[in-house]
Amino acid sequence: MRQAGRYLPEYRKLREKYSMLGMVRNPELAAEVTMQPLRRFDLDAAIIFADILLPLPLIGVDFSFIEGVGPRIHNPLRDPRDAERLREGDPEEELRFVAEAITLVREKLDPDRALIGFAGAPFTLASYIIEGGHSRNYLETKAFMYSFPDRWNMLMEVLTRVTIRYLKMQVNAGAQAIQLFDSWVGALSPGDYKHYARPFTSRIFSSLTACSVPLIHFGTGTSGFLGEMRSAGGTVQSVDWRIPLGKAWEIIGFDSAIQGNMDPLAMMAPVEVLKRKVEEVLEQAGTRDGHIFNLGHGFLPQTPVENVEFVVDLVHELTSGSR
Amino acid sequence: MRQAGRYLPEYRKLREKYSMLGMVRNPELAAEVTMQPLRRFDLDAAIIFADILLPLPLIGVDFSFIEGVGPRIHNPLRDPRDAERLREGDPEEELRFVAEAITLVREKLDPDRALIGFAGAPFTLASYIIEGGHSRNYLETKAFMYSFPDRWNMLMEVLTRVTIRYLKMQVNAGAQAIQLFDSWVGALSPGDYKHYARPFTSRIFSSLTACSVPLIHFGTGTSGFLGEMRSAGGTVQSVDWRIPLGKAWEIIGFDSAIQGNMDPLAMMAPVEVLKRKVEEVLEQAGTRDGHIFNLGHGFLPQTPVENVEFVVDLVHELTSGSR
Repeated sequence: MRQAGRYLPEYRKLREKYSMLGMVRNPELAAEVTMQPLRRFDLDAAIIFADILLPLPLIGVDFSFIEGVGPRIHNPLRDPRDAERLREGDPEEELRFVAEAITLVREKLDPDRALIGFAGAPFTLASYIIEGGHSRNYLETKAFMYSFPDRWNMLMEVLTRVTIRYLKMQVNAGAQAIQLFDSWVGALSPGDYKHYARPFTSRIFSSLTACSVPLIHFGTGTSGFLGEMRSAGGTVQSVDWRIPLGKAWEIIGFDSAIQGNMDPLAMMAPVEVLKRKVEEVLEQAGTRDGHIFNLGHGFLPQTPVENVEFVVDLVHELTSGSR
Repeated sequence: MRQAGRYLPEYRKLREKYSMLGMVRNPELAAEVTMQPLRRFDLDAAIIFADILLPLPLIGVDFSFIEGVGPRIHNPLRDPRDAERLREGDPEEELRFVAEAITLVREKLDPDRALIGFAGAPFTLASYIIEGGHSRNYLETKAFMYSFPDRWNMLMEVLTRVTIRYLKMQVNAGAQAIQLFDSWVGALSPGDYKHYARPFTSRIFSSLTACSVPLIHFGTGTSGFLGEMRSAGGTVQSVDWRIPLGKAWEIIGFDSAIQGNMDPLAMMAPVEVLKRKVEEVLEQAGTRDGHIFNLGHGFLPQTPVENVEFVVDLVHELTSGSR
């Protein structure tokens, strides 16, 4: 999950001077923000500071972040015919700054810490492109995919191709693992997931297999189709807090690694509740290899910094030696 | 699910003259709105036109509906000490109009159609009371329950007691089945569900067992803890579209009835897609007894009326004789 962000005072200080996208597009600043949580906490990996929406302009979709609201797409794709007119930019040119930030972080990062690159999965990106921002029910997205399956496929195709090139660029620049965020795919039924989303995610994972880096497959609200998610690919399946980790691992298969699955809201709890929640996740994981302790989704800006430190240290303490 | 509403032109016509709460609080109008979908569609049951937030004023929490936004709580419960000062009104006095509407509908309704009464479950009501309206992440609700467990219990206790009395009143007035809406409980982890929500839902169901009416237990996003939901009680478990119905029924147990589970957004699909989706749900249900065909959540205002008619007729056609 994104580790940097508004819960860190040093991040908020930078944000007084720069916009979020201003920092993302400046490799030195993006590298600095990526390193911020690593200076504070004993984390095993860093994740590059970027945003899943960055590739949108490469297909002709423009966006910005509205303070207190979130992402806003300036030209949402509502007329299905527009799917035929999407461009296909080159990440090596237009998202060069992400590669440069990755290379910079690798120079600064302790060699025993991994750097994770990432991208949004096609369904999740398509939902922003069609809805124009966040959505409660994905009305426009679902109506589009049900009504115009050919144009849906066109949109998903171009997102798939751009994402593959974008992620390969990140690996070439030094990313040692890749996370694919299908954050909103849990809005779909299992049948719709298999039909409208999985073929594209699956192509991304199979295209990246040759890169020989761990591939983390992220979703939320997917408790009902974890097996289908796994079959799309990825070497690590990320699960959210809505299912016990042990049950999720059993469904996914113990031959796969797993990431998760503490509720990010548990970070707001008093320390004794938080401790119990960390212990519950670790008990569910048991002594098997292949568990990455993480939240089930990103940090909230309101997260107390001292709780992050507490959790990171507790996880190391409880897992040292035994795992 | 609520069957009446903004997707019906005859409902929109009434709404030009009356507010939503104005109609709910007027037994004649509430009965009329309840009957509207029954006049158009060959439905097996009617559900009383009301709102899950109606009992809130009974504990001292006031709300209204803001056009285009949704419910807004005027005095959200943020100071935990306020949980000690909640009042406990009498539904027989303050929600008498719901009982009257139920009695009126029973007089009008074809005797072979059932009338369903309903209420919101304590966790879902508490989330509105604490957040002040809809929420993306339930930050305030979870922070409250983690930080002030005693005050959380006080709030849940009073909601539980009022809900039991409210539902008994509905059965006494003529409701032939009860649905308990724990619409947002899927935001919780299974552990938190068991700890902070289930004890109260469980008490409601056990208090209603003596009423000898079917009890429908509704949730969304609960694919990861359907077994825990079932153990809270209810004779019918309602599941959403995020899990195949067959898999859900297996987890819940085939000795329980099940309700669901078409995606309400599928109602926006062209008729050939919609047909496939109805068939998928019925195939998953198989030829067992105890399946109530329904959506996994309520109708959207944008739902085309002709699609509702198509689905109702198709379900009857495909299930007549065989089930």
